[in-house]
Amino acid sequence: MHRTHTCGELNINDLGKEVTLAGWVQKSRDLGGMTFIDVRDRYGITQLLFNMDEDPSLCEGARKLSREFVIKVSGKVVERTNKNPKIPTGDIEIKVSALEVLNPAKLPPFLIEDETDGGDELRMRYRYLDLRRNPVRNNLILRHKMAQEIRKYLDNQDFLEVETPVLIKSTPEGARDFVVPSRMNPGEFYALPQSPQTFKQLLMVSGFDRYFQIVKCFRDEDLRADRQPEFTQIDCEMAFIEQEDILNLFEGMIRHLFSTVKGIDLGEVPRMVYADAMKYYGSDKPDTRFGMRFVELNNLVKGAGFPVFDNAELVVGINAKGCAPYTRKQVDELTDFVKRPQIGATGLVYLRYNQDGSLKSSVDKFFNEDQLKAWAAVFEAEPGDLILLMAGPTDKVRKQLNELRLEMGTRLGLRDKNKFAPLWVIDFPLLEWDEEHARYHAMHHPFTSPKPEDIELLDSKPGEVRANAYDLVINGTEIGGGSIRIFEKSLQSLMFKHLGFSPEEAQKQFGFLLDAFEYGAPPHGGIAFGFDRLVSIFAGLDSIRDVMAFPKNNSGRDVMIDSPATISDDQLKELNIKTTV
Amino acid sequence: MHRTHTCGELNINDLGKEVTLAGWVQKSRDLGGMTFIDVRDRYGITQLLFNMDEDPSLCEGARKLSREFVIKVSGKVVERTNKNPKIPTGDIEIKVSALEVLNPAKLPPFLIEDETDGGDELRMRYRYLDLRRNPVRNNLILRHKMAQEIRKYLDNQDFLEVETPVLIKSTPEGARDFVVPSRMNPGEFYALPQSPQTFKQLLMVSGFDRYFQIVKCFRDEDLRADRQPEFTQIDCEMAFIEQEDILNLFEGMIRHLFSTVKGIDLGEVPRMVYADAMKYYGSDKPDTRFGMRFVELNNLVKGAGFPVFDNAELVVGINAKGCAPYTRKQVDELTDFVKRPQIGATGLVYLRYNQDGSLKSSVDKFFNEDQLKAWAAVFEAEPGDLILLMAGPTDKVRKQLNELRLEMGTRLGLRDKNKFAPLWVIDFPLLEWDEEHARYHAMHHPFTSPKPEDIELLDSKPGEVRANAYDLVINGTEIGGGSIRIFEKSLQSLMFKHLGFSPEEAQKQFGFLLDAFEYGAPPHGGIAFGFDRLVSIFAGLDSIRDVMAFPKNNSGRDVMIDSPATISDDQLKELNIKTTV
Repeated sequence: MHRTHTCGELNINDLGKEVTLAGWVQKSRDLGGMTFIDVRDRYGITQLLFNMDEDPSLCEGARKLSREFVIKVSGKVVERTNKNPKIPTGDIEIKVSALEVLNPAKLPPFLIEDETDGGDELRMRYRYLDLRRNPVRNNLILRHKMAQEIRKYLDNQDFLEVETPVLIKSTPEGARDFVVPSRMNPGEFYALPQSPQTFKQLLMVSGFDRYFQIVKCFRDEDLRADRQPEFTQIDCEMAFIEQEDILNLFEGMIRHLFSTVKGIDLGEVPRMVYADAMKYYGSDKPDTRFGMRFVELNNLVKGAGFPVFDNAELVVGINAKGCAPYTRKQVDELTDFVKRPQIGATGLVYLRYNQDGSLKSSVDKFFNEDQLKAWAAVFEAEPGDLILLMAGPTDKVRKQLNELRLEMGTRLGLRDKNKFAPLWVIDFPLLEWDEEHARYHAMHHPFTSPKPEDIELLDSKPGEVRANAYDLVINGTEIGGGSIRIFEKSLQSLMFKHLGFSPEEAQKQFGFLLDAFEYGAPPHGGIAFGFDRLVSIFAGLDSIRDVMAFPKNNSGRDVMIDSPATISDDQLKELNIKTTV
Repeated sequence: MHRTHTCGELNINDLGKEVTLAGWVQKSRDLGGMTFIDVRDRYGITQLLFNMDEDPSLCEGARKLSREFVIKVSGKVVERTNKNPKIPTGDIEIKVSALEVLNPAKLPPFLIEDETDGGDELRMRYRYLDLRRNPVRNNLILRHKMAQEIRKYLDNQDFLEVETPVLIKSTPEGARDFVVPSRMNPGEFYALPQSPQTFKQLLMVSGFDRYFQIVKCFRDEDLRADRQPEFTQIDCEMAFIEQEDILNLFEGMIRHLFSTVKGIDLGEVPRMVYADAMKYYGSDKPDTRFGMRFVELNNLVKGAGFPVFDNAELVVGINAKGCAPYTRKQVDELTDFVKRPQIGATGLVYLRYNQDGSLKSSVDKFFNEDQLKAWAAVFEAEPGDLILLMAGPTDKVRKQLNELRLEMGTRLGLRDKNKFAPLWVIDFPLLEWDEEHARYHAMHHPFTSPKPEDIELLDSKPGEVRANAYDLVINGTEIGGGSIRIFEKSLQSLMFKHLGFSPEEAQKQFGFLLDAFEYGAPPHGGIAFGFDRLVSIFAGLDSIRDVMAFPKNNSGRDVMIDSPATISDDQLKELNIKTTV
């Protein structure tokens, strides 16, 4: 061992000890007669003292050290005259008697400090240096702790962690697969799993009863800021359970995580049916850190001659508490916000409830004060509030107002990263209409079971069939989702039929699962959490990138190792493939 | 929840309770007035009692149940008249008052019992049924427990589990890579990692100090019985340590595993240098459950006119204790064994030390009794022993005699699967001569550091340079290996040169690592264990296949899901590749 202690553990109780430390030079200060060096490792920082009078050559050596040199020092623990109460080692320093440079360092391309001057591109290229920074490393320490606690909790609940294969088979449903040419089976390909869905269901058929895995999954999608081609799921499945059991058990897991990792009692997780989430928040993942619920106004606004309202399927609004003083400019900003192409609204109607009790709206022409008072009443508005209204086709206007609500939440500081508002959204629709392909597809996946009481609607009103499916949402982000699964061959075949599979296609793609259901499949269900996302919420980050050690950029590249890259002709030949570019 | 209890937990203390169980029908016995059903789940088996007199229609229902039906029953816990002391629930049975068939089952294609009539092919095709069998499921439960204990141990030792990427870059060194075409980067490919080697070293450069990961790795090799294209490693790395620290810490991990999972105190793990392992066992992974060490005889046998010995580089033998009574036929069998093409020896010389003290050898013509007595003496042979000798080129004859020693160990019952003999093999050579390509390659990998005192031999006698590399062997199987790494750019560049890389090639493949070494890389080293292999040793199995939930066959196929498979032309087009078959 190149050290007797880490750089984070020595304190006043160690005075007089002869110790050896190793680490990186964080900074040095040369005060003429004395040179101070801060040496850093994962565990902390310790101050080193070199005295010119006592050992000039040693001190000269210390003066030559630059940032990020790797050094090993021996010396005695002494009390500091100038203590630093901010760090655990701040009461002591090491009076160095021997110094060895284990490895020198070039000047890093950016500052290795909590706040760095390195841009994204540079930090990713030198990710190994970026990972030296406390905030980045702390995210990964947090991730480690969370993974440990998740495993502890699930192990205590009799879950077995079972590794499912990474080299599986491509299926046309869902997102694009990454594929892997098989050398031994020319012309054939493996696919990397988008999730271990079918394998975990087979483990239930096998009687494993409770399965989990913290597992890498893969999706070849066009990457947005917050997507990665490889990501990690906490994947879980249970047999002989009902939805209620899953909600309770995994609510327990999330509460355990908050309590052990963050010391927060999350409390009971409220539940909301999908239909209400859409009605009151315009989203299946409402941010419930703040209220500002939607209020529908159709019965108050129709027939007044204002065509935008009269022609709209839905007129709906929110009450921005205390925003009546907003200037014209501020209100215009909000109008511009909802008119941006990403949101696509045609306009915004406001009703200002002034502090003096008077009402002022952008549609005064069409509505008298009594009418406006009635609006204010349904919003439970008080003097000082600003009511914002939008109108249009129901689904569209809800989505638009959701964006505005979130924007107002941000402007009003209601989306505190240190506050955590969890929510179960339940009773999702089974099927979702796909405009592009003019057919229904599974909202969750094809293995989700319809609610038994809704099965009869499958033929007549497929869009109204509710599923035994649920999402866990925290602060407006979906962090997990799951369902009770179909476990009978006949119902699964019916489901495939409704999704447009021919019996032959269904058998070719999922024959092994349909077969398995004939040999004694138990009722089962499960859930999967996006682990990267969950960690990022715990870390208070907007992106999942900084909770991954080596993320890829938006083109799917790892700029540090310069991957992907071309491969040799010999490799291509052995794999029986050619590139066409 | 479809049950109040599992099938493994009810006992005499639960008498009189009303319970609900769910599980699979293991077997049924119809005794006229009464029908008994054994219902099974992961946790155990419980006997159900149906009484024809009390509820004929219920009993009729029970009679219709076949093996592997999934059922749910409610009833009262009663004491059995005919107790079964072999199972924890053997004192009780459930007097059933309600029965529900949750899912019927077709007759399984093989018996779901500890001993099955299903062949390998059938069991793999219906792996989800094979996994219902206790021995197979118990292997996976064992695997789960081991993974949990490994994580506990390493977490307690301040290791951080960090996930490294699965989509990385192909490198020409080592085994064949599986590759993944990148849709977003046409003509370019990711590779799946053979190990996270370079990433874990970068994490050391980042100051993570102690890293581990239980991680899938991939090798596109021609599969032998005991190889799988995807396998799992316990991958570890530490900074600021020396070889001694790694040996101690991971010896601790293995002892922790044996103690917590198997209740065995493994004791201290002995160490042996590579040169001795080869000299005394003819193998770098000796099975030390038994002795039978090699004895070299050159100085006793040369010059007697027996050409086989006179011309041999090495004459070496083992003492098969108590085997003097072997018949001519048995000795011939051994001769045939070593002459098999896989071993390739030309013959076997024996010396029989008869119970009456007389000596009899197959080379009596060339050696007199005194000479033979001298042989017996160096083998410390006693009356009743059989000495077996082989001769030839040193490396070759050692390998051959190793096979014979293992065969004798097996014949003599010295390789007990319930006995565990661990061993550290240390001081491996740095380089290994590659006959085929007429050059040296790295015995471990290109990042292994030479012993400092041997570096000067790199140019003159590269084959004699020893590495700071070590393997952990249990019962003749390598279960882990590692090394202290190079951490200086200059030495790493020198190493690449000796491995035949041009500076350009080295920079192209490993530039990111060489660059990283310039920014303050600490001394570091690590180890990786084959997790599948380790579990198989704990389970007393010869193959790793049955410690994996969904293994592939020798052609790399998953016969259950029928993968790999062809993919659509659209997929190929999007990926900018064509197949050439």
